[in-house]
Amino acid sequence: MKITEIKAFLGRCFEPVELIGAGDIEITGPAKIEEATAGQVSFVANEKYYRHIAGTGASLVVVSPKAPLDDAPAGTSFLKVADPYTAFVFILQHFAGTRRIAAPGFAATASIAASARLGRNVSVGEHAVIGESCVIGDDTVIGPNTVIMDGVSIGSECTIYPLVTIYDGTSIGDRVIIHSGAVIGADGFGFAPQKNGSYMKIPQMGTVEIGDDVEIGANTTIDRATMGATVIEKGAKIDNLVQIAHNCRIGGDTVIASQAGISGSVKIGRQCLIGGQAGFAGHLELADRTSVAAKAGISKSFLEPGLAIRGVPAQPMRDQLRQEAQVRGLGEMKSQLEALEKRLQELQKRLAG
Amino acid sequence: MKITEIKAFLGRCFEPVELIGAGDIEITGPAKIEEATAGQVSFVANEKYYRHIAGTGASLVVVSPKAPLDDAPAGTSFLKVADPYTAFVFILQHFAGTRRIAAPGFAATASIAASARLGRNVSVGEHAVIGESCVIGDDTVIGPNTVIMDGVSIGSECTIYPLVTIYDGTSIGDRVIIHSGAVIGADGFGFAPQKNGSYMKIPQMGTVEIGDDVEIGANTTIDRATMGATVIEKGAKIDNLVQIAHNCRIGGDTVIASQAGISGSVKIGRQCLIGGQAGFAGHLELADRTSVAAKAGISKSFLEPGLAIRGVPAQPMRDQLRQEAQVRGLGEMKSQLEALEKRLQELQKRLAG
Amino acid sequence: MKITEIKAFLGRCFEPVELIGAGDIEITGPAKIEEATAGQVSFVANEKYYRHIAGTGASLVVVSPKAPLDDAPAGTSFLKVADPYTAFVFILQHFAGTRRIAAPGFAATASIAASARLGRNVSVGEHAVIGESCVIGDDTVIGPNTVIMDGVSIGSECTIYPLVTIYDGTSIGDRVIIHSGAVIGADGFGFAPQKNGSYMKIPQMGTVEIGDDVEIGANTTIDRATMGATVIEKGAKIDNLVQIAHNCRIGGDTVIASQAGISGSVKIGRQCLIGGQAGFAGHLELADRTSVAAKAGISKSFLEPGLAIRGVPAQPMRDQLRQEAQVRGLGEMKSQLEALEKRLQELQKRLAG
Repeated sequence: MKITEIKAFLGRCFEPVELIGAGDIEITGPAKIEEATAGQVSFVANEKYYRHIAGTGASLVVVSPKAPLDDAPAGTSFLKVADPYTAFVFILQHFAGTRRIAAPGFAATASIAASARLGRNVSVGEHAVIGESCVIGDDTVIGPNTVIMDGVSIGSECTIYPLVTIYDGTSIGDRVIIHSGAVIGADGFGFAPQKNGSYMKIPQMGTVEIGDDVEIGANTTIDRATMGATVIEKGAKIDNLVQIAHNCRIGGDTVIASQAGISGSVKIGRQCLIGGQAGFAGHLELADRTSVAAKAGISKSFLEPGLAIRGVPAQPMRDQLRQEAQVRGLGEMKSQLEALEKRLQELQKRLAG
Repeated sequence: MKITEIKAFLGRCFEPVELIGAGDIEITGPAKIEEATAGQVSFVANEKYYRHIAGTGASLVVVSPKAPLDDAPAGTSFLKVADPYTAFVFILQHFAGTRRIAAPGFAATASIAASARLGRNVSVGEHAVIGESCVIGDDTVIGPNTVIMDGVSIGSECTIYPLVTIYDGTSIGDRVIIHSGAVIGADGFGFAPQKNGSYMKIPQMGTVEIGDDVEIGANTTIDRATMGATVIEKGAKIDNLVQIAHNCRIGGDTVIASQAGISGSVKIGRQCLIGGQAGFAGHLELADRTSVAAKAGISKSFLEPGLAIRGVPAQPMRDQLRQEAQVRGLGEMKSQLEALEKRLQELQKRLAG
Repeated sequence: MKITEIKAFLGRCFEPVELIGAGDIEITGPAKIEEATAGQVSFVANEKYYRHIAGTGASLVVVSPKAPLDDAPAGTSFLKVADPYTAFVFILQHFAGTRRIAAPGFAATASIAASARLGRNVSVGEHAVIGESCVIGDDTVIGPNTVIMDGVSIGSECTIYPLVTIYDGTSIGDRVIIHSGAVIGADGFGFAPQKNGSYMKIPQMGTVEIGDDVEIGANTTIDRATMGATVIEKGAKIDNLVQIAHNCRIGGDTVIASQAGISGSVKIGRQCLIGGQAGFAGHLELADRTSVAAKAGISKSFLEPGLAIRGVPAQPMRDQLRQEAQVRGLGEMKSQLEALEKRLQELQKRLAG
């Protein structure tokens, strides 16, 4: 793809796109600005990285209109766009091609129940298992050795990677991506304590509902509801090794980083950002656009939209940072206390003298 | 099932069961009190939820004898029992039916070693693998694509979900439930440091022993012992994504919430409650009925039964809460210190004057 | 194996090896010092365990030259070596035998792409899937139901346990061990935020490179790079349920304990020790031989080699321990402050009087 073609391609989404330098060079793929060589395209979105422009070997760099190009190498062309980061994502997508997860059609070794209804152009990988009464939409790919239990519905254009488990009754929207090892719809962790100290299992009769455009990371677990449904709303992005317990509701376009743990019946709003290893007590609620710092421990609801919270137990960012500063200042405080004590002692001595 | 039949069914375990309202109504399934409609049964155990009684659409609600029913809807019947929560679990179990994990019998695509001995009425799912010399008890179900390595023994009435891995030599009791993605018996994390900074693997020659009535969550890992056995005692309940390292012993009826991590050779007593994301240093011990708060970091043994502990490093609940309050009070303490300083300064000035 | 044979076997690596007691006894296997019985070999490396020597039932105990043997049982022989721990690991390896993960050769039910090139003596388990253009070295074992996507290269003498997923393009060295449920090469967690609050997926076009002699625990996830490679250098040992995000580099012989989480583009040096449940913010760097305490939260780079760090946010061990002591001392500080206040009040009263 020539630089002029990339300019035209971006021009369909970004207005304006300005080309600085030669346009007739063939671009063969993307690379990081520090590592790019001739024929490659890179980008600089953050001004911290402007210093890499002078030394880059890239043939093309996507930058913002205000990027300083005075020291730019002679052989490098530039495309100036308002949002170079997203523009570069478009370029990545162009070069990404399609990953082959399963050969087209149904593998001969796949076990597909006779009552399952599969759409047009569905691929089912080797040894995959699709249970009774499942419904799978057009253009969806089911990876090898994945197991889909009875009565699951999956939309169209989904990618279910190898070795995923989807329990019975789960409902999944369109364009959903589920990575390997994820387990969707296992029993919620519910037990009734008995007088002798043992526990009786509470049947988990609910389901899981996953909206369109959700992505679920490797080895993440999303439990089914006791009754009703655990819900992941449209556009939510969930990283690896995350736990989402029974009866949770995760709002649309909310992002949850790796190893976060959401206890039962938690309701997280839309467009929230949940940091890695954050943990939630059960039955609480976060308003839309709440930002939770990594490792935070959330023990109560935060109902004001847009708050940033942090710490264990979590509190608003400003309070928590002040508290952390106070803890760091404890040594100084101790010195002040001792100095005060000494001065008081001298005073008392003088008065007694 | 008619309300009178539910009353009779509960009456076998709960004494007395009192019916308020009509008994001739057909109940088709359970639902949450806020969501239940005609034909459904719900429950209220916690007085916080009494307020939902007036507006419920349920045909039947299970409540405690002291629940106020003055505002109850005219069309709703009530069953009064001493423990409405457990009674409702019985009702859930009645309506739950059986989840089909594998078709009865052995799937044609399963790989079952000739030397394996399987009991009566065992189901083995598609592409499941059962190794040499395995012994599997009556009525146990092995899900599709699950792999059971050589020499594993599994009791009767167990449910092993799809895509579980059980390493060689593991021993599992009766009525055990293991969810998808769990890995039982992988090598303990043991390496001997060498002089050149590298590590030599220590062979992990022990096994894992899992008692009766244990439930193990999705993607949980329980490592085999270096020598001897990692032991999960009867009735323990382990949530998703939990790590139990080599040579641990988890006591009977102990409950471990999601993402907790138990280091090597830790011994946890009976009927303990371990909160989510709690972490344990190695080689320590918790007495029976210890309660560990979520996110706690346990760095030493707690040998007094029934303690509640919390914090990083964990300490008894009261000490930890006091310390947390002191940290929250640091701002005030600082103000007091400054006020004191000022008063002292004035005093000194006056004396000097 | 007779004791004299064990002596000769150890003598090839450890010099000198001294035998105390009878040499003509047959040893059938290893056991823990407290549990060993006649015919078994055990060891004591740590002087804390010297007290177990007097009561052991072992026929042979490996000890250091300075171990006190005055109270040793009459029937027990001893081998004295400078490093009894490593010597015992050698003995464990002798008795360990080989675990059978897959029958020799290719299982008839395995799906191996025609374009894959497999070395001599490779075993491929039942229902395993090996994608197009994969290259697998001599003597490597691929467990049952494991899925290896297209273009993966695996070295020789590797052990890939059952139910592992290796995404396309991953490169793995020699003698690598990967436990069940691990997912190598899933997409990094990268999304470009859009103006309407939704996210656009950033194609993850890089790969994962795993060096020789690496061990990866059960259900651990290592994401592929956005561009370039996520790299695990030679000899690194990674425990269960660890998350390693896109574009990380983990140095040679570094050890990462269970449930640690390494965010994107983190660079960890060689021979580091990362404690369980530790978490890293993105784009930071640890120098060689850094030791990170369990549950630490690393929010900035530590570039001085050999540091021990601890806490949230992590700081050098000494600073963190001092701070923790100050927090524990808050009650005393409060008392001092109150005492001071009282004394000052009395002083003021006296002066006013």
